[in-house]
Formats: sequence, C-alpha cells, structure tokens
Amino acid sequence: MIIVMEPTAREDQIQKVAKKLETLDFKIVFNRGEVMTVLAAIGDKRLIDPASLASMEGVREVKLIQEPFKLSGRESKADDTVINLKNGIKIGGKNPPVIMAGPCSVEKDVEGLLKVAYTAKQAGAQVLRGGAFKPRTSPYDFQGMEEEGLKYLALAREKTGLLIATEVMDTPEIDLVASYADILQVGARNMQNYKLLKALGKVGKPVILKRGPAASIREFLLAAEYIMYAGNPDIILCERGVKGFDSHYTRNILDIASIPVIKKYSHLPVIVDPSHATGRRYLIEPMSRAALAAGAHGLMIEVHHDPENASSDGAQSLTTDQFKALMVQLNKLKKLLQELSHSNIEAVLH
Amino acid sequence: MIIVMEPTAREDQIQKVAKKLETLDFKIVFNRGEVMTVLAAIGDKRLIDPASLASMEGVREVKLIQEPFKLSGRESKADDTVINLKNGIKIGGKNPPVIMAGPCSVEKDVEGLLKVAYTAKQAGAQVLRGGAFKPRTSPYDFQGMEEEGLKYLALAREKTGLLIATEVMDTPEIDLVASYADILQVGARNMQNYKLLKALGKVGKPVILKRGPAASIREFLLAAEYIMYAGNPDIILCERGVKGFDSHYTRNILDIASIPVIKKYSHLPVIVDPSHATGRRYLIEPMSRAALAAGAHGLMIEVHHDPENASSDGAQSLTTDQFKALMVQLNKLKKLLQELSHSNIEAVLH
Amino acid sequence: MIIVMEPTAREDQIQKVAKKLETLDFKIVFNRGEVMTVLAAIGDKRLIDPASLASMEGVREVKLIQEPFKLSGRESKADDTVINLKNGIKIGGKNPPVIMAGPCSVEKDVEGLLKVAYTAKQAGAQVLRGGAFKPRTSPYDFQGMEEEGLKYLALAREKTGLLIATEVMDTPEIDLVASYADILQVGARNMQNYKLLKALGKVGKPVILKRGPAASIREFLLAAEYIMYAGNPDIILCERGVKGFDSHYTRNILDIASIPVIKKYSHLPVIVDPSHATGRRYLIEPMSRAALAAGAHGLMIEVHHDPENASSDGAQSLTTDQFKALMVQLNKLKKLLQELSHSNIEAVLH
Amino acid sequence: MIIVMEPTAREDQIQKVAKKLETLDFKIVFNRGEVMTVLAAIGDKRLIDPASLASMEGVREVKLIQEPFKLSGRESKADDTVINLKNGIKIGGKNPPVIMAGPCSVEKDVEGLLKVAYTAKQAGAQVLRGGAFKPRTSPYDFQGMEEEGLKYLALAREKTGLLIATEVMDTPEIDLVASYADILQVGARNMQNYKLLKALGKVGKPVILKRGPAASIREFLLAAEYIMYAGNPDIILCERGVKGFDSHYTRNILDIASIPVIKKYSHLPVIVDPSHATGRRYLIEPMSRAALAAGAHGLMIEVHHDPENASSDGAQSLTTDQFKALMVQLNKLKKLLQELSHSNIEAVLH
Repeated sequence: MIIVMEPTAREDQIQKVAKKLETLDFKIVFNRGEVMTVLAAIGDKRLIDPASLASMEGVREVKLIQEPFKLSGRESKADDTVINLKNGIKIGGKNPPVIMAGPCSVEKDVEGLLKVAYTAKQAGAQVLRGGAFKPRTSPYDFQGMEEEGLKYLALAREKTGLLIATEVMDTPEIDLVASYADILQVGARNMQNYKLLKALGKVGKPVILKRGPAASIREFLLAAEYIMYAGNPDIILCERGVKGFDSHYTRNILDIASIPVIKKYSHLPVIVDPSHATGRRYLIEPMSRAALAAGAHGLMIEVHHDPENASSDGAQSLTTDQFKALMVQLNKLKKLLQELSHSNIEAVLH
Repeated sequence: MIIVMEPTAREDQIQKVAKKLETLDFKIVFNRGEVMTVLAAIGDKRLIDPASLASMEGVREVKLIQEPFKLSGRESKADDTVINLKNGIKIGGKNPPVIMAGPCSVEKDVEGLLKVAYTAKQAGAQVLRGGAFKPRTSPYDFQGMEEEGLKYLALAREKTGLLIATEVMDTPEIDLVASYADILQVGARNMQNYKLLKALGKVGKPVILKRGPAASIREFLLAAEYIMYAGNPDIILCERGVKGFDSHYTRNILDIASIPVIKKYSHLPVIVDPSHATGRRYLIEPMSRAALAAGAHGLMIEVHHDPENASSDGAQSLTTDQFKALMVQLNKLKKLLQELSHSNIEAVLH
Repeated sequence: MIIVMEPTAREDQIQKVAKKLETLDFKIVFNRGEVMTVLAAIGDKRLIDPASLASMEGVREVKLIQEPFKLSGRESKADDTVINLKNGIKIGGKNPPVIMAGPCSVEKDVEGLLKVAYTAKQAGAQVLRGGAFKPRTSPYDFQGMEEEGLKYLALAREKTGLLIATEVMDTPEIDLVASYADILQVGARNMQNYKLLKALGKVGKPVILKRGPAASIREFLLAAEYIMYAGNPDIILCERGVKGFDSHYTRNILDIASIPVIKKYSHLPVIVDPSHATGRRYLIEPMSRAALAAGAHGLMIEVHHDPENASSDGAQSLTTDQFKALMVQLNKLKKLLQELSHSNIEAVLH
Repeated sequence: MIIVMEPTAREDQIQKVAKKLETLDFKIVFNRGEVMTVLAAIGDKRLIDPASLASMEGVREVKLIQEPFKLSGRESKADDTVINLKNGIKIGGKNPPVIMAGPCSVEKDVEGLLKVAYTAKQAGAQVLRGGAFKPRTSPYDFQGMEEEGLKYLALAREKTGLLIATEVMDTPEIDLVASYADILQVGARNMQNYKLLKALGKVGKPVILKRGPAASIREFLLAAEYIMYAGNPDIILCERGVKGFDSHYTRNILDIASIPVIKKYSHLPVIVDPSHATGRRYLIEPMSRAALAAGAHGLMIEVHHDPENASSDGAQSLTTDQFKALMVQLNKLKKLLQELSHSNIEAVLH
C-alpha cells in the first residue's frame, strides 16, 4: 500500500499514519521527496480499510499496489483454470472455444425451443442457453416462464445432449434452478448482488458470471472472488458490454480488450456475449469473430426460431439459418486460431 | 412508437410491419419521406416488445415516444408525492429538505453510534442512517453486524427519536430488516435486483431507492416502477453519483442535474447522497449545498464519531463536529431556498 | 514516481530500472513486499517519460505521485489567482461571482444583440458572451458571422459598458479576435488544440478555457498549463459538462464537483456554463444555483432575444425576461453565500 | 424530423410548430395519441436548427430520423470508397487490410527510424507512420522534431518505398506537412478542430481522421463530412479507443464494434490503432487480430527500435522483433478472412 501525504502534511501527521500501520504489523518505508512524503506499507492489506487510512489528517491518497482479488488472480494460481462442464466438455486454458446458443427467454412454444436446440447441436454448439427467470428493465415486460421454462430446457437437453445454462436471480430460487441446470448464470445486473454470489459459492455447479454494465475489471474479478471465497472455484467470466456514451448504434460497448486483460490477471475462463453487448443482429457475426480472435474461451449467442415474435430481445437474435452460417465461419476461424496459438508469438510478445 | 424503416426497405416489408401493429390494435400513420418511411404507431405499447419489432426485416430503429414508466411518472400523477415518514416528518413536494445522517456501517461500538445519533438530532437531522447488512466490493471487507446492528439502530431511535433508515440486500432478509427499520434502503448495486424490488412492493414502509452507478434516469424510474407496481407507492429516489471516466479525484460523478430532471418527469421525492458520490470528505459541504440549491428533497450524509477507525468509508465520513458546522450552513441555505421558491421564477422558467 | 514491478520480475530487471533512474539523478527507495517490489523514485519527473519506463521488462505500472501540472497547481502558488478583467471587475478568490450572459451566436439582427446586452447589464451581468466564429458539429449548420459579429459585439460593449468574451478557433484568427475581445474563449472541442493554447500564451488578455467533453480534471489543468507555460497567467477555467452514458434528458453531465476539486488543486478561477452542459432551458435555473452553491467564481449563461429563431442552441437559451427573473434569484443567493463563506465551516472542513 | 409535444401542450402551441415548419416547406403529418401529439416533418432538415424548434413552447423533444451526415453516409453513396494511396496500394472495400507501422514520434536517431522502416517493409507493412508535430498532454513532454522529422520520414520513404503518414496539428502547418507526407493525419484531440478539417478539404492527399476520445460515431462521421464537404473525398477513418470508466488496465476502450457499424452507415474505409487504444504492449496482438476479424480495412501499429528509450509512448510500442512475429500471424489471419468474406455469410446476415 502506498500512502501519499499532502504537501502540507505536518511531520506529526506523517508519524501518526506510520505508527498506526506499524501497530498492525506493517513494515513502513519512508519516501521523502522535496514536495511531499510517500509511505510504502508492506504487510497484509486485509487488516485495514484503506478508506479509514485515507481519512487521517494529512493523507492525500491511498493507492493499492497488489490486486485486491486473491483466489481469482494469477498471483495465487499461475495455471489456467479448466472447468469440466460435463459430457467431456471443457472450458478454459488451451481448450477450443465453447459455443453456447439459444433464445433470450424460454417461451411457451416448446417446439421452437427444440428447433433451436437441434440446430445449435448440429452446428457445433455445446451448451443451450435460455432464461426461465428474466430480469427485465420494465415490470411490464415478459418476466419469464419460471419452473415450466426450466422443464422445457431439461427436455431439450434430453433430446439433444446439449448442456443447459440458465439464469438465477434470487437466493431462494437457487435450489430450484440448480436442480435443472448444468451451469448457473448470474446476470449483469446482479453482478454485485453479494448475497446471491455467496450462496452460489455453496452450489456444486459451474457459474457464468456476467460483467456488470459499469463494472471495472477489478470489480468484476472481486465479484468472482465472492463466489470462490464461499467455496465454488468453477467460475466462467462473461464480457457482455459496458455502458458507453454512445448508445445510438449499439446498446453497449463490447470491451473486447477485457479478454486479454482478464487472461493476464486471472486464471479463470472468459467468454463473450456479443448479443447483449450490441443489441443488433448484424453485429453478431463480426463481434463473434473478434472475440475469438482476441482469445475468448467461448461465446454465448442468442438464437431464436422466430425473432420477430420473440418475447424478448428479438432485435439481437439470430435465426437458426443465420446461426448455422455463422458457425461455418467460426469453425474455420477456431481452427486457424488453434494453429496460431502454437506459434511463437506468445513467447515473443508476453 | 415510431418505427424508422431502412432507406432500402421494400414496400412489402413496410406493409408487414404496419399489419403486425394493426392486429394489435395500433393505429398507424405513414410518414413517407424522400429517403425513408417512418411509421407512427399509436396504441398500447405494452402489447408488443419493441425489440421484436426492431428485428423485422427492413426496420432500422424503433423509438419510444411515451416514457415507459407509468406509476412513477408525472403523466399519471401530476402532483408531487409527499411521504409521511413518521413522527410528522414529511418528505417531497414543498416540504423542507429532510436530513439523514449516520455512519456507513453500524459497528460494535454502540456508544459511538449513540454519539453520532445525538449529534445528528441536535444539529437538526431527522433520520439516522447506518448499514447492518453491508454490500462490499471485496469479500474480505467488513460485511456488517446484521441483526445486532439493527438492534443498535433501534436503541439509537429510542434514545433520540430519530427515524431509522437501513439497507436490505436480499429477499429473505426483508422481514427482519422491516421489523426494525422505519425506512428500507435499496443499495445502488441492487437497483436492478428485480426480485428484491418486487418483494419491497409488499412491504408497508417507505423505500429509499439508490440510483445504480450506470443507471440512466429512465432505468432508475423503471426500478421505482417495479416497487410501485407491486404495491408500494412510497419511494424516495436517491442520486448518489454515476460512473464517469475520471475517478482520480472523485469516486463517481454526482449528477446534480438529475434532481430537476427527475422532478420534471416524476412526482416522487428525490434526495442526494454526497458521501458515496464523491468519496472525499472535503467535497461533502459544497455538494450538499449544491444539491439543496438544485432542489433536492433531502440529503443523506455519512457521519462517524471516529472516521480514522471506521469499518468502512472513513475517507468520506464527517466527524460529528464537522457535521454540526455543516448543518449551521445548510439551515441558513434551506431558509433562503424556501423563500426563493415562493418567488416568481418557477412560473417564468418552467 | 512509483514503479510497481511484476510479481514475476527478476532481480536483474529490478536493478536495471533502478539504474536507469539513478543515471537521471533520481534517488531510489526499494519497497520489497512478499509478492512484489515497488520502487519509489524521487527526483525531477520531467527528465523521463513514464511510458518509456513502463515499457521496461518486468515493470507492471508507473504511478505518478506529484500532480503533473505545475504553474496551474496549488503546489506552486498557494493563493487564489484573481484576474482583473477590466473596468474594475475581478474574478477569482473571494470576489463575488461574475455573470457572463449572451447569445450562443452573434446573428444578423444587431438590435436583438443589443436588447440582450442591455438586459444583461441591467440585471447585473458584467460580461457579454457571443460567438462570431462557431464550432458546429455539422458543416451544414450556421458557422458564425466572423468579423462582422465581432463588430456587433464591440458596438454592444460601447453601448452598455459590458466586457466582451468570444471564442477563437484557430491560430491565424487570434490577432483579429483579440483586437475586439476583452476575454478570449477556447471551446471545449479545442481544449487540446495545443498550437492554439501555445499561441494564446502570447496574448495579453484573459482566456476562458472550456473543459473538453471527455477531459479529466488533470488533462484540463494540463491544458491550462500550456497557456501559462507560454506566458499568459490569466486563465479562467470553465466546467461545461462531460460526456455521460445517458444523454436522453441532458446533453452532458454537469460535473459540479469539479468546482471544489479544481479549487483544491489549482489557484485559478473556475466558472460554470449550465447552458451547454444541460442543453435544456428548464435546467439553467437549478444548475446555476447549484454551481454558485458549490463555489463557482462565475457563470456563463446563454440568453437570446428570440430563442425560437436562434441560429444555434435555441433550446438552451433563456429569454431576456427569464434571465432577469433568474438574476433576482442569483443575486439573493450570492449574498447568502458571501455570508456563509465568512463562517467557520472552511476551517472545520478543509 | 419527429417533434414530440409535451403531454400538456395546448392545441395552439401544436399549430404554431406546424405552421413554422410549413413555412419552410416541410410537409407535416400529425400523429395524435391519447397522451401526446407527435408531428412528423418531412422536408429538408438543413433549413432549420432542431434546437430552435426544441425551444418552442410545448415541445418536449425533436428527434432526427435521417442521419445528418450526407457525403460520408451510405445513403448518398452505396458502394465502398476505395482510396488509391499511391504505388498501387489501395485501401477500402474488399482490398486486403493495409498495415501502417512506425514510431509514435520521429526522434533524433535517424538510424533507429530507418531500422523500423526496413523491418516494417520487410514484414509486409505498406505505410510508415511517425509524428513530427506531436500533440502531448503536458507542455513539458517532447513536442516533436517538426520539419526535421518530416525530412527523416522522407528519407525513410526513399530508402524503403513505404508511404508516409504523419500528423498535422494546425492550419498554418498544412502546406509544410503536405509537401512531405503521402497521407495526412488528424489526431484524436483535433477531430473537432473544424478550421483544420475545412482546410484539409482543400488538400489533394488522403487524410486519416482519428476518432475523438469522446466522439460518438455520428460526430465522427460529421467530422469526416467537414473535410468532404470542403472538397476532399479521400478520408480514412481510424478507431483508436474511447474514454471509458475503467482506465486501470487499458488507456481507453477500443470500440471494435464501431468497425462494422461504420461500414454499415458509411462507405469510407475504417482502420484501427490498437496502440493508442490500449496503451499496453501485450494487448497489441489480440487487439490487432480482433480488429481484422471485425472487418477493419487496416491497422496502425506503433513500432520502435528501442521502446525503453522512446521519447513518447514507449509502453505501447512493439520492438521490431515483436512486430515481425505479429505480422506472421496477421498475414495468416488476413488470408483466412479473405476466404471467409467470399462465403455466404454476408448474404445471410446483412
């Protein structure tokens, strides 16, 4: 921890800060410049709230040096985390990207869902996504089919062999959702619902954690830390766009650079949801390609059998035909990228 | 609803969109320009998901004309909502601003809490704030005293007559928190925790709803709409800063203009939390003044008996002496603003 | 300067960084933690580009401790800068706020301009603002009356005694604009037009520097630094809103907290332009009040004799009657704030 | 244009707006809903300032339907613009991506520049970039070698056959820079320096226009419109990252989705600068791949012969060896993408 003192700080104020840290077993190094003094405090940061320190007289700023996330960070685990999803499907590390596809919401038309599932399976996807509990911006929008939706997903799994990923929104629903799903999903708006995160730490199934629309990467990894700290190490991070100043042409800004950044700082797998990020169908293809090219461990893509009549997010859903055409492309790209990753670039660049 | 067709849209695509809307009882007006056609659809927007419409071929964009919030909007209720908090304290409308003060977290030192409470009361505050359930960015930070903290707050209420406002984080905790608190608070990170919002619609106590760090004003009012639609009309909106691109000198950007914007579009009271917005003690005074000058119905200010040893947010907490000095200022300002609001400016400007 | 080494940095990499800094006469303090090493380099930061340092192997991050602005910062000049504008009008320090008012653009109708000028004068404004050279987002929008507009402004000055502030957009225009104007203005979009800033350093007239829509406060003060470093110390900073993620109800977010932040870090006067910040007429009054309450040294407000027919920015311009009513309010508020600033709050809070 | 009236607007206010538009030869369609009235005005938007209209009593909002950019938009020119850069190198349309590489600044060490140029040429780049006039955030940073730097660039062109791209910052410098450069560049901070844009419209050489850090895509295309409207149709747009709320791990957010968005709305070529966008060397490779995968017409990459001693931006510059390794990858990727673009995906998805 670095404590920057005000240029006007008095010596007794500097000493008071140093003393406080020393009583907590920090080792203090004084860095005295002409204008101001900077203290470096070496020790266990968890023993003190930096904000309290910052509130002491004469302190200008407290800067953290070590990343505050531990379990989710590379510093505590250098190797990539590879999660066994089930049926031999693995995500993370050098494994080929996992494709998750399906409708935004599970709807009444179970035949439609099955059509999407068969298409997804055939085109090479491994996971069927679909919401039964739906977080919607307006209370007047479709709120999901709840348990019935989960049953439809289970049926689709039975028919196709795809795994099922679906969202859980509230702690009392976890058991129900976990009894159906293979992978549980935390939505972007719940990324900092800490009670939910803690409770998911007790569930023995992988969790897809979506990045909040205003979450810094540090906050994102700290949210993963909550789940891991509570006992569940199988976290799949999902970039799905952040709020930007221009929502005229795309819903959010897809922060593609977050993929290599996360891969540098964390060992967890990271996937991309181009559908929610952009909100526009015509952007799914280029953004899927870009995400894979940037190193994503997987994609989550919205596909609907009849987008014009979808209960939610029709504008960003691919039709089944579009998804098939997209997968032809992505499969070629995946193959090339697999080859490139064996080349010497990483040794040179990293 | 306005449906903007692509310049390349064919006539049959235009007709298909019009037909779809007509079957839902929308009245369609065609606006045909030289380059493109625009349809105006007049009817009940809730009957169709704009995203589905946007997914139809030939559609460029769907623009909503009416605000999507109904119960929280001025269009359904022209008069200001005034909430009777208890003990004759009213918030909203032309009532003088309500001051809420107290520590970020309730801590073990109950004497400290009582000191803050007595000071707050004496200086003119009406509500004691303090967190017993704490949403913290890191799992390693202090997570709150839970029910014991609620008991301390109740004790402080008993001693001082202040009302109590405290946060609830998860649906299963609502009954417990509501059994102690006079006002329930939804934290910024839970603003779109829709299960929590719905459940709070069933509670017969006022709710402070904090604006999410990346929530647009529309999303903010739609979150209030969830609570109101579920049955609870007593919502106090709280602006507490939004994420900006410069967090070097302040934690968030306090969006002061949101106060008059919200007052134009909604009848609900709106207060400001300058402490979380700025994260810096020296900014509390000018931002409190600015918030009142902009028309806020109240303030929520962090005060701690010993900020250097606070469990959370010490850097932005005032000491009791600082709070007293601040209140001397704010009381004068409140008086002047009360006078100004009787002048003719509103008639002229609005 | 603080150099954070990677956890994986080798000792020879650490030594290489230290050596490089020592050859530039920096004094190095080693702060060795369990996980990583941090170097504190004490010396003249201007001797090295931090980015070059950051490019050395094993370096994770380079953090600046001292603010990079010198002439514009409090560290080099503790007292507030007070600028003598002319005619005895002073801006900055404890002087009462200076009000600048006028149309966005100077237009053909010189009588209209004079009407605004007389109203502004009578209501208590000291400066007439108006653009003769107009930066417009679209090339198809009105681009300003150029020299003829300057002549109109000069006429209005002659008739009313108001000072004139007007924008200069390009280095070759400086002499012309300076030959008419009392105060030169740099628009938000030119805040980092460094050639213009340097050239304005050679002009012996005060400069209003508007904050760029995406400029951090540090970048803002560094832009002022350019002008000061080139020789002109008379800079008036102007907050006019920054880009935010929600432009549905306001054009920009008015960053009111930037006023006290700038007053802490810089000695320069800082004013607020609520018109460009919000883009909405009904927000001018509350935001003007908020700006003064937060400590602004002045306001710049758009007033037009006939906003419905203005060549630019009609939606955010006040009519002359609205401006008069506003000034009645602001004059009362100014008086109260003057009294408050003599109270003991500053001693307690800062 | 769509004019949304307030729910409280009176009939005479509605008629006044309609009348005003009719006198300007707009055709008006009334869309009367239960709550509010919406006017559609069909005609030449350039005849009226929407802001003036918005300032009329009873008007809530004015929405533009047609994009305000004309010359740069697809609506006026459906085919991709292909620019002949020189030496047979073409950029835009289906041409393979053009690679531009070189140091941030041209420095004293001309041998270093030549080394970079030879490497770039050999690895497959077509253009050498390098700044002789440098816009720097701080006046204390290296400001460029000016004309001497241009001479070095010319020498490198002579030796290698690479084209030269370099920045111009101010109108009086245009002739000088244009006398050396093959391609002129407008920096991000000058994107809305309209005098510069207009003057570049008179220059007979291609212009790279970098996106401002807070520029919406619409503002970006309107800046291009300035140059085109003044007479120069050869504009290369360059995405280089926008300001985001998290600058801890990357300098800006690289808005990769802007590439396909721009390709949909404009016919101009669009390239990506991953170096300035991210500010981190390790991100250049994945972001270069992502940019190409998303359809960029080219890349601009910083390469330095000795980044640790660069005068600017060392942290984001590749070494010559790293650039060579990167180009091996990119050449394979380019080939695959060329193949994919011949597949049927576009027909299906767009």
